[in-house]
Amino acid sequence: MTHARGRQFLHTPGPTVMPDRILRAMDRPALDHRGAEFRNLADACFGGLKRVFQTESPVLIYPAAGHGAWEAALVNTCSPGDVVLMCETGAFSDWWKEMVEAFGITVEYLPGDWRHGADPDAVEAHLAEDKARRIKAVAVVHNETSTGVLSRAAEIRHAIDNAGHPALFMLDVISSLASMDVRVDEWQVDVAVGGSQKGLMLPPGMSFTAVSEKAFRASQSARQSRSYWDWTALLPDGRTPAFTCTPAINLMFGLREAIDMLTEEGLDNVFARHARLAEAVRRAVAAWGLELWSADPREHSNSVSTILVPDGHDANALRACCLDRFNVVLAGGLQRLNGKAFRIGHLGDLNEPMILGTLATVEAALGATGIPHTKGGIVAAIDYLAGE
Amino acid sequence: MTHARGRQFLHTPGPTVMPDRILRAMDRPALDHRGAEFRNLADACFGGLKRVFQTESPVLIYPAAGHGAWEAALVNTCSPGDVVLMCETGAFSDWWKEMVEAFGITVEYLPGDWRHGADPDAVEAHLAEDKARRIKAVAVVHNETSTGVLSRAAEIRHAIDNAGHPALFMLDVISSLASMDVRVDEWQVDVAVGGSQKGLMLPPGMSFTAVSEKAFRASQSARQSRSYWDWTALLPDGRTPAFTCTPAINLMFGLREAIDMLTEEGLDNVFARHARLAEAVRRAVAAWGLELWSADPREHSNSVSTILVPDGHDANALRACCLDRFNVVLAGGLQRLNGKAFRIGHLGDLNEPMILGTLATVEAALGATGIPHTKGGIVAAIDYLAGE
Amino acid sequence: MTHARGRQFLHTPGPTVMPDRILRAMDRPALDHRGAEFRNLADACFGGLKRVFQTESPVLIYPAAGHGAWEAALVNTCSPGDVVLMCETGAFSDWWKEMVEAFGITVEYLPGDWRHGADPDAVEAHLAEDKARRIKAVAVVHNETSTGVLSRAAEIRHAIDNAGHPALFMLDVISSLASMDVRVDEWQVDVAVGGSQKGLMLPPGMSFTAVSEKAFRASQSARQSRSYWDWTALLPDGRTPAFTCTPAINLMFGLREAIDMLTEEGLDNVFARHARLAEAVRRAVAAWGLELWSADPREHSNSVSTILVPDGHDANALRACCLDRFNVVLAGGLQRLNGKAFRIGHLGDLNEPMILGTLATVEAALGATGIPHTKGGIVAAIDYLAGE
Amino acid sequence: MTHARGRQFLHTPGPTVMPDRILRAMDRPALDHRGAEFRNLADACFGGLKRVFQTESPVLIYPAAGHGAWEAALVNTCSPGDVVLMCETGAFSDWWKEMVEAFGITVEYLPGDWRHGADPDAVEAHLAEDKARRIKAVAVVHNETSTGVLSRAAEIRHAIDNAGHPALFMLDVISSLASMDVRVDEWQVDVAVGGSQKGLMLPPGMSFTAVSEKAFRASQSARQSRSYWDWTALLPDGRTPAFTCTPAINLMFGLREAIDMLTEEGLDNVFARHARLAEAVRRAVAAWGLELWSADPREHSNSVSTILVPDGHDANALRACCLDRFNVVLAGGLQRLNGKAFRIGHLGDLNEPMILGTLATVEAALGATGIPHTKGGIVAAIDYLAGE
Repeated sequence: MTHARGRQFLHTPGPTVMPDRILRAMDRPALDHRGAEFRNLADACFGGLKRVFQTESPVLIYPAAGHGAWEAALVNTCSPGDVVLMCETGAFSDWWKEMVEAFGITVEYLPGDWRHGADPDAVEAHLAEDKARRIKAVAVVHNETSTGVLSRAAEIRHAIDNAGHPALFMLDVISSLASMDVRVDEWQVDVAVGGSQKGLMLPPGMSFTAVSEKAFRASQSARQSRSYWDWTALLPDGRTPAFTCTPAINLMFGLREAIDMLTEEGLDNVFARHARLAEAVRRAVAAWGLELWSADPREHSNSVSTILVPDGHDANALRACCLDRFNVVLAGGLQRLNGKAFRIGHLGDLNEPMILGTLATVEAALGATGIPHTKGGIVAAIDYLAGE
Repeated sequence: MTHARGRQFLHTPGPTVMPDRILRAMDRPALDHRGAEFRNLADACFGGLKRVFQTESPVLIYPAAGHGAWEAALVNTCSPGDVVLMCETGAFSDWWKEMVEAFGITVEYLPGDWRHGADPDAVEAHLAEDKARRIKAVAVVHNETSTGVLSRAAEIRHAIDNAGHPALFMLDVISSLASMDVRVDEWQVDVAVGGSQKGLMLPPGMSFTAVSEKAFRASQSARQSRSYWDWTALLPDGRTPAFTCTPAINLMFGLREAIDMLTEEGLDNVFARHARLAEAVRRAVAAWGLELWSADPREHSNSVSTILVPDGHDANALRACCLDRFNVVLAGGLQRLNGKAFRIGHLGDLNEPMILGTLATVEAALGATGIPHTKGGIVAAIDYLAGE
Repeated sequence: MTHARGRQFLHTPGPTVMPDRILRAMDRPALDHRGAEFRNLADACFGGLKRVFQTESPVLIYPAAGHGAWEAALVNTCSPGDVVLMCETGAFSDWWKEMVEAFGITVEYLPGDWRHGADPDAVEAHLAEDKARRIKAVAVVHNETSTGVLSRAAEIRHAIDNAGHPALFMLDVISSLASMDVRVDEWQVDVAVGGSQKGLMLPPGMSFTAVSEKAFRASQSARQSRSYWDWTALLPDGRTPAFTCTPAINLMFGLREAIDMLTEEGLDNVFARHARLAEAVRRAVAAWGLELWSADPREHSNSVSTILVPDGHDANALRACCLDRFNVVLAGGLQRLNGKAFRIGHLGDLNEPMILGTLATVEAALGATGIPHTKGGIVAAIDYLAGE
Repeated sequence: MTHARGRQFLHTPGPTVMPDRILRAMDRPALDHRGAEFRNLADACFGGLKRVFQTESPVLIYPAAGHGAWEAALVNTCSPGDVVLMCETGAFSDWWKEMVEAFGITVEYLPGDWRHGADPDAVEAHLAEDKARRIKAVAVVHNETSTGVLSRAAEIRHAIDNAGHPALFMLDVISSLASMDVRVDEWQVDVAVGGSQKGLMLPPGMSFTAVSEKAFRASQSARQSRSYWDWTALLPDGRTPAFTCTPAINLMFGLREAIDMLTEEGLDNVFARHARLAEAVRRAVAAWGLELWSADPREHSNSVSTILVPDGHDANALRACCLDRFNVVLAGGLQRLNGKAFRIGHLGDLNEPMILGTLATVEAALGATGIPHTKGGIVAAIDYLAGE
């Protein structure tokens, strides 16, 4: 327990702020995971996840972090020696690439500058050259949590189609799901990978794979040793999810409540709210005269913003000031962005006064740490939000 | 359950924001209130309350709202026909006056304009004229929750002393306790009346009377029928509190936690934090060009601010905008101030981003409802908080 | 925090076991008690209480212990000098009598042996002799928590009617409400007094008065000084409850949940469950060869049982063994029964394994403390419960 | 939410009853898993786990079910083509065997009758014959959750030593850890596999591997593709645990609290409590004239008991009666024991009245379902517990 007073404003891009309803829903005794009451819980979760993923395909639930669901996507569909096409978008695409390679799979990695999403044209060109159809899958991070850049998933789909390539389409929607529009079926995503601690407003520790029929068929012939992640056992008939080990019951109590809350608000309203709060952040950044890392307005993330501080200034000093003096948690720049940028996660259970409180605190900390800026970024955000 | 997303910013001047630690401490099974574990709980509460009230006198715990503790103060010390000197400070002094009269006690009510606290000079002059010592008690509201005006309690004490008058000194510290400095022993307060849902960060439903030796002696001869509030039963030896009915056990779990939190932070730090956040509010108000109701800077409350809107504008429309669009709860003007003013409670478990989020929202709502103001009040608050 | 492992089995006859649903419902932020969301909460509580009290009359909610609601019943209806007829049933009727007398009201107290409920014949005879109609009210404890004896309220009603007496009928239903059948309207109870920490499965700190039209009329002429408890303010039109001070919001969140739970189960099922568990206790007591204090089978309480230990043995040693070795809390004998008897509260959120676990523990403790008994009382309870 | 009243008695052998302290500790906002407060949390967890596992080796924390920690044990230490010696003890040893084989590892499976633990003599004999030292590891389920039979781990250690065999010793302590004595260092266990939802009294979703220096060295040369489970990343220096993905923060809040509770009670007292409650269960079973499945008194589990019903009777009907009429959850017989036996989990946060309530309910259900038995098993349990 910290002695600091008042509520902490947590703006890591996951874990996110969890509403009391969800915390209280998880705060209860466990139950028999082989009994009827659990069956009802599981049905509610499996059904609700399909709506959240906007898919008719089954969505599997893993007691595991998001990296686990990445691993599940790979070991179920690809065999050693296969080729996967990936796009460099940031730290998370790098990490996923490392994982792919750990399983003896070759990655063809389209280079990127981290300020743009995956390039649909480059994907199409690369696939078009793959006359031998060696490429088994195209794997893209939808929302790069490390940069706040969104890849245009629909255009990637078109790129694959334009190339007439049969590759599977894998999409990491961990930090976009339930915050920005994710259309698994419309985009014909074969494996969508999600996690609990982002837009679903849950603690970390649970992750998901939405598995298309095509992906499931691929899993039947993939020759990668697997057990914990194995779809054969988890999807006995290819359609109906099952559990092979003790499920994360209490997280599922929370998941059911989260789905109820998303349903009550309406997914479109959820997306609109994230867009509105994200735009308020961007207005403040622009008014401060700071630079948003994301370079293309079509690709600005509505769940996290990465903001550069001027050369010669330390983004981590700003973060320390926010945390130590004001109990506001900002995320740091990852890898090459460490010290150069800070990130504001603005996904999950947020509203206007929460984001305004954070922006006001950032403005206070910009002043307190002597980072050059134009005062009144907060007023730009206020004006934007008042004007709606 | 509301469908609104994100946390509600609650700025009624009680109930206040309750920290998770306190809510969780109350979220547990009851226990035997005649057993040893309860005895430990009660000892921790009684001991801690003395520190919070800054007194060596016993502090009684009532399962009751604050009005109940008012009634307890009266029926234990005054007999029908007695005279009590009171000072008009606002709606709460009016209500207390009505209660006093309901018990057949005569109130001599020093008039006030609601924008100032109790006038020590007037009290002294009035007492000095009471040669017959008919006046049994002087009863003052320390912090007028309805106006955000603090009465200068130490000066009232001096006034009584200067007049050489033996009257009891009763002080309603409901909305000042654990937010602003309340020195029961130093000020020789005979009955201090407190409540749970303010600076103590608890739910409503529990209240307190700190009882000086002089007050207890008075209770032994007071001829007012009483039972539930009776100090004779609750303070059998005049020093050691007891319970005569089932205590509010779960609220006491919370009270123990609240006392621990206040002790960890340190009362002086608690007061300094309230002063800092209150000053930030006043800076914003001044920068907006709005008028603070409290007229004398020595008497500005650090737990609640009352703010006037310009003539012809409706403070309640502003409040409705804050609540409906932004999930921020402001309090309304009471009685004569209804529609003319709004109040911001800034007491309890608050920190900088919370108050900044609220001020930013108020600025948004001022804009949205067309209330004339100078933009950037929020920047004044930020500058003040950043500069510390 | 205790180091004892496992759940404590709490069998005080209030506070009782509180279900997780209720605890979680209270574990949430407060809200504006002058806003619309609170209005909904209050409506749900007021409406639900009428169903629980089985009345069309308004039921007032006090932030106060049950004794407070007793006081409210008195000061609103009786004037100094009035006469109230009461029946000695145990410690609680004694305490209520003391309270009545504290308000200058004369009590005519029909003596009792504590092993029987109020005697309807004696009430009728006494009223019949009151030709002058000096008696203002008949006040009876429905379920004597100190003895486990139920007074036959319907027959008391008939006694009053048979005597043709206009006295008000006041009934303390604190430990019968929501556990045994309480028919306020059918029995023409004028003031029914209830509390939160019994059948309503809530923490202590909230109490109730159901106020008949006749009682309300009486309150308009009663000359007892009052403010906190005053029905004039709390029932402005005699029908619609209001609040005059800050309500106990979080307890009301719990009350709404409790009412929902009682409604889901159905009041008749609630009563049947209490009857079944109470009978299981009585079967065990009989099989052990111990004596139930309640002497008349028509008057056995279904919410608490008082059980005598043989002469020369100490009921409190048995209780200490249950608590210290097994974490089971039994209640002690009160006043004249101290040391001679123990009490098992069996009201609230209980089921078969809970009561069986307690009876088995009592049997273990009877053995461990050397109190003469026939083994297998628990088997009699099991047989009874299995046979249904 | 179920309408059933009273607390459910959950006797699955995991998930187990979770104490309120642990549930409340998890019921709080997340925090920045890259910040200092999380570092403190992680240190407390890693340090405490070493004490619970009785080892100086590092214990890794996985956001995963127990099966995941099994997989981690395998993929980090064994290469395709390796041989692992396993012992058939029940359904869990079967499942683990299947998993081992899924990774291209050959299992030599010593047959068993499920009523006995792993046979140390057979292990020794088998290892002694392995002159070529092909066997990479001996993998044993310490406590077979499916049968309630404990394998004598110390004797298995001696068997390996007697054979002078260098094989790694892997031990599944999922349902023994924090319930029965598990001495990882004394027994020179190279990989001990634990889970959260058993003796640690947590929700499912987190699991552990204690990794000896020898096991870590083996992992450096093991050629099994791995990423999520990879010790190289999780134990960068072979001694100090790290996280490679977002940790299960809220479960770790619970883990810290669980460790505190175990420390307060003392591990020896925890084991003694489990032994006492388990023996009470066995006394009842014997008195009923039913048969305990575990055949060797040296191997009776203190965390779960499997109990046979007489031929021609249905154990699942008994379980249905317990659940539907009494809200008591028993576990069923797995695989070949389905319908023939029921299981009572008696691990975790349990005490005497809880287990007595369950045994009394089983006795009631034996009667209600017409299963032949001698009445009074509960009395035997009571006598045993009273006599201590």
